[in-house]
Amino acid sequence: MISVGVVGGSGYTGGELIRLLLGHPMVELTAVTSRTLAGSPVCETFQNLRGATDLVFAPVDVESLRQCDLVFFATPNGVAMELVPELLAAGIKVVDLAADFRLKDPAVWQQWYGIPHACPELLDEAIYGLPEVNRAAISSARLVAAPGCYPTAVTLGLLPVIEAGLAVHGPLIADSKSGVSGAGRNASVDLLFGEVTESFHAYKVFAHRHHPEILQTLGTISGRTHELVFVPHLVPMLRGIHATLYLQVDETEQAIRQLYEQRYQEEAFVDFLPTGAHPRTRNVRGSNLNQIAVHQQGNQLIVLSVIDNLVKGAAGQAMQCMNLMSGFDESAGLAAVAQLP
Amino acid sequence: MISVGVVGGSGYTGGELIRLLLGHPMVELTAVTSRTLAGSPVCETFQNLRGATDLVFAPVDVESLRQCDLVFFATPNGVAMELVPELLAAGIKVVDLAADFRLKDPAVWQQWYGIPHACPELLDEAIYGLPEVNRAAISSARLVAAPGCYPTAVTLGLLPVIEAGLAVHGPLIADSKSGVSGAGRNASVDLLFGEVTESFHAYKVFAHRHHPEILQTLGTISGRTHELVFVPHLVPMLRGIHATLYLQVDETEQAIRQLYEQRYQEEAFVDFLPTGAHPRTRNVRGSNLNQIAVHQQGNQLIVLSVIDNLVKGAAGQAMQCMNLMSGFDESAGLAAVAQLP
Amino acid sequence: MISVGVVGGSGYTGGELIRLLLGHPMVELTAVTSRTLAGSPVCETFQNLRGATDLVFAPVDVESLRQCDLVFFATPNGVAMELVPELLAAGIKVVDLAADFRLKDPAVWQQWYGIPHACPELLDEAIYGLPEVNRAAISSARLVAAPGCYPTAVTLGLLPVIEAGLAVHGPLIADSKSGVSGAGRNASVDLLFGEVTESFHAYKVFAHRHHPEILQTLGTISGRTHELVFVPHLVPMLRGIHATLYLQVDETEQAIRQLYEQRYQEEAFVDFLPTGAHPRTRNVRGSNLNQIAVHQQGNQLIVLSVIDNLVKGAAGQAMQCMNLMSGFDESAGLAAVAQLP
Amino acid sequence: MISVGVVGGSGYTGGELIRLLLGHPMVELTAVTSRTLAGSPVCETFQNLRGATDLVFAPVDVESLRQCDLVFFATPNGVAMELVPELLAAGIKVVDLAADFRLKDPAVWQQWYGIPHACPELLDEAIYGLPEVNRAAISSARLVAAPGCYPTAVTLGLLPVIEAGLAVHGPLIADSKSGVSGAGRNASVDLLFGEVTESFHAYKVFAHRHHPEILQTLGTISGRTHELVFVPHLVPMLRGIHATLYLQVDETEQAIRQLYEQRYQEEAFVDFLPTGAHPRTRNVRGSNLNQIAVHQQGNQLIVLSVIDNLVKGAAGQAMQCMNLMSGFDESAGLAAVAQLP
Repeated sequence: MISVGVVGGSGYTGGELIRLLLGHPMVELTAVTSRTLAGSPVCETFQNLRGATDLVFAPVDVESLRQCDLVFFATPNGVAMELVPELLAAGIKVVDLAADFRLKDPAVWQQWYGIPHACPELLDEAIYGLPEVNRAAISSARLVAAPGCYPTAVTLGLLPVIEAGLAVHGPLIADSKSGVSGAGRNASVDLLFGEVTESFHAYKVFAHRHHPEILQTLGTISGRTHELVFVPHLVPMLRGIHATLYLQVDETEQAIRQLYEQRYQEEAFVDFLPTGAHPRTRNVRGSNLNQIAVHQQGNQLIVLSVIDNLVKGAAGQAMQCMNLMSGFDESAGLAAVAQLP
Repeated sequence: MISVGVVGGSGYTGGELIRLLLGHPMVELTAVTSRTLAGSPVCETFQNLRGATDLVFAPVDVESLRQCDLVFFATPNGVAMELVPELLAAGIKVVDLAADFRLKDPAVWQQWYGIPHACPELLDEAIYGLPEVNRAAISSARLVAAPGCYPTAVTLGLLPVIEAGLAVHGPLIADSKSGVSGAGRNASVDLLFGEVTESFHAYKVFAHRHHPEILQTLGTISGRTHELVFVPHLVPMLRGIHATLYLQVDETEQAIRQLYEQRYQEEAFVDFLPTGAHPRTRNVRGSNLNQIAVHQQGNQLIVLSVIDNLVKGAAGQAMQCMNLMSGFDESAGLAAVAQLP
Repeated sequence: MISVGVVGGSGYTGGELIRLLLGHPMVELTAVTSRTLAGSPVCETFQNLRGATDLVFAPVDVESLRQCDLVFFATPNGVAMELVPELLAAGIKVVDLAADFRLKDPAVWQQWYGIPHACPELLDEAIYGLPEVNRAAISSARLVAAPGCYPTAVTLGLLPVIEAGLAVHGPLIADSKSGVSGAGRNASVDLLFGEVTESFHAYKVFAHRHHPEILQTLGTISGRTHELVFVPHLVPMLRGIHATLYLQVDETEQAIRQLYEQRYQEEAFVDFLPTGAHPRTRNVRGSNLNQIAVHQQGNQLIVLSVIDNLVKGAAGQAMQCMNLMSGFDESAGLAAVAQLP
Repeated sequence: MISVGVVGGSGYTGGELIRLLLGHPMVELTAVTSRTLAGSPVCETFQNLRGATDLVFAPVDVESLRQCDLVFFATPNGVAMELVPELLAAGIKVVDLAADFRLKDPAVWQQWYGIPHACPELLDEAIYGLPEVNRAAISSARLVAAPGCYPTAVTLGLLPVIEAGLAVHGPLIADSKSGVSGAGRNASVDLLFGEVTESFHAYKVFAHRHHPEILQTLGTISGRTHELVFVPHLVPMLRGIHATLYLQVDETEQAIRQLYEQRYQEEAFVDFLPTGAHPRTRNVRGSNLNQIAVHQQGNQLIVLSVIDNLVKGAAGQAMQCMNLMSGFDESAGLAAVAQLP
């Protein structure tokens, strides 16, 4: 049993993390902080939690978190890096769900996030929290940077090919689609029901912050430089990411299928689908699962990869990291299957 | 041909009004103003209007509107009353789509809208812009207060019974449901896709500003005081109001049906449906039509009344009033039927 | 530990029941039958269940169910009554989620369901499965008729008033709204996305089968005859029922609030909300909870009651009954809170 | 003024075509046929058309259509080819919105549509109804094959590059997304609201019938063979297609932008957007417009192309062809702009 805190618990990621932590058999959730909601009951903001918790939002300071063994940050980018050094110094482990510790190079970080990094000396120590790639390192880490939602879906979709070092001709193309909850719970005209529903569009072509993150991870795995074209789109739905990945490979479909099957047969949260499958995002809604299918014709490989952006793409994966860091069963608290419909 | 201006053209009602006015054969739209967007092209905010208009948002002042014959206000409550006296003095007719001129009693207005009325002397002159009730008065008016969306659906649903002075036992119950566009295009967490979709709820029970408006209209028609229970609900869809009205009457269903048929047979924008019908809001989406059905068992009468809140409930009805005020065919520019699906 | 079977497991109710049973700590799900899908894996139809079950749909016959301690029917109306007598004779308990055993009077049943009842002699024995009303009787029952979704939301919303025998003036009005999953997973044009989304409408005014069911339950509780006006509406969302209930009472709001608080303080699955609350269906999506709020002005009482139609309105409530019939904790397997958003 | 008929008017495409034709200033809609609905009023099926037409569905035979100058087929694939020869022989022009006359090679047609073609001798004469490509030929045609929805969005998105004969390296990738109305109004479980909403998925990877259609059109334009990877996806919305097109070119972004601007400056229904734009499908919902944006980085060109699948992707484009075939203004009846929201 460990004592856990959540900093920045008033957004969609924070709310989902609280919900998952309350159902975890080895966790006592002892603090949830919010700058704007300090003093009000958590279940007033998240009315789904009435009866499940009596916690009241605490102010965002180290004092509120001192009794914790592990603290999650579900804050906007740039907040965690201000508090993390003090928490680590106090012996508290940290999982950051924002982007503060995802990139290794502080110059690249500053270029994409627009401000200087507050503790660049921690970037090397921080472990990228993708258990399917970094399981051992996560298990012994003090500081874990949980991956972005798109990077999770894209990286796991490409992982077997990249790890195997297969030759890929031309750029990797990642046509990616996300439900709206990925954009957070901010009062913005662009996220209104009236703006989002009954429409579909691409955004930030060539300019999304997940681009350098994916490239860094792929490069670390393969030891090579990759060429990536990444286009995100907004889908009028709450949850779900669907990545459609296009690659030119030299292997046969049979060889590729075998590669994926072997790579993922022991992974509890990656489900490699049978020939001909077209995974639907709803299959994994509310679950920590990543479903992957491959289709091939000649050299053209197409990979379909779906996750729930708030679970495997955020809160669930962060809790999976916490399980590893705490010596728990990696799947503890993550057994829920998707509701259908 | 008349010259028309729209004050406050950056919301959903304003955008819909601009779209309708651009399609009107007798209107030249010469000015659209916006406090926040002055200087930017209208079609940047409303990308559906690319190619349809080159207008640029003007600042909100009388100068921008001086060349107009008629000006619409699609502003938040409390804005029109500051500008209307000067416009009227300049000989410009006004249709206000907000609530500034809907209530006759300035004390009641202040009670519900929270500020003193800026020009109470105009409240008597202002005509309530429901053509099916006030056609002649609208035709000769300088200042028209276009009705709220709920009041339009509810009042037209009850009109034949109220006008005929039928005895109604117990309160009139108006269980009302609205799509989200009725709440406007404001950056508010409560209107996010993530908050609205896949959910349904009532709001402002006993506390909605359309309550006194409906009561005033019914009382003016019948010369009596009515008892009204009005509960609004939010539906996860863009457009549409569905009012389900419950009344206890003494007449037979046949008599009631005849009453509705006769009352509405000459009305171009009220469609009284055959026995057994259940109107769907999508039947009138984008159209100025009000579809009404009645069901009765014993004394219990149930009226189903649907409109598009942005058209018959706002911009379309305002343009219908403009047609009357300008001597045009009442249906000019309002012939579009709903798209399906 | 008990062995459980599900007959008719290919619809939305069946799928939800399977999902809940797979997560129940005291249940082994040993058979799921389907006339049309016999021989195919359950997780092909419900792809959310990949990895959670290897069950294959069995044919619908008593042989497939003989090893069960308890069998659920999630079949169309009229199927359960053909098989139930034989199952009961074999010592197997039954919970029927369809309507076969909900009405006590076989003539009334035939009038509303259009065919003669196959085993009218069991109607008296069958217990109406609303634990908040019939807890003791359910605990010792062989045959339970799980309530309809609308009747659950409406009855629990009215229960404190009806049980207390308060005078109610005029009819009880139950303006009710349901998400689409309540209509099942049938290939019907009326249920297409293209027909349902972005629209709202009433249906079956004065003609819905849940009308006699609600009346029977209220009458059994109070020993009186009630007058009920019940109008169902379809909401463009997956899950959720919102009942808006209108009653004229003699008591003060304070007295009414106290009545509800006392009645529900020990009920695990009814959450009576604080003054001024407007429950949202999403608060209980995927959970077995019923949230209820009351608003009053003078004699006019308005009750807002929300459930998830597939959980507290169907599969969850059926499992709650199973818990009682099996001597388990009533909440076993039903602890999940709603996902938000 | 011409007399027009619609065969197969009971689906979404047929309904949209009827709506557009009723608003066309030079068209008298004299016959709408339906095998299943013959004898019932059109406005019972399409309740948006109440008051707009008194037409009754006629049986599907040549007799019903003999007085027409031009007949549209909005039927399932394989129906038009049975009736078209007789209509042409009677001097009646035909626009087929199905796929019967889209492919030139009867063997390819049979391979993709599964039955032998009934009148292969007409395939050469039939003109592919993409006015931006075949304007002159359409103007003098007796028989026009209106393009599929995906092929319209994809072909217009690629047209300037293909026409200019630019070198393209590697395959053309067309990651395409469609609203649900493109799948028609058929009672199918896969199209239920309960299956479609809150989910996203690819379908028919490497197996969609629009693949050979796009390839044929591109090849005809360029005189070369192209390599195309086409992946369709289903979006939980009613209308809209968004094609995201990936190409490797040798030209600069400036050169590419200039190419698109020049190619489309005279096209009434193609709107080439300014630098940095991300078109939304809602911008063109209900309109005949195609909005296109380009983004480029190095050699990587990305084209974003959006249409309304029922208008520019079906009924609107068919009517645009009719305008050309009849000597009308090409834009007649097609001026409507999209509603927003």
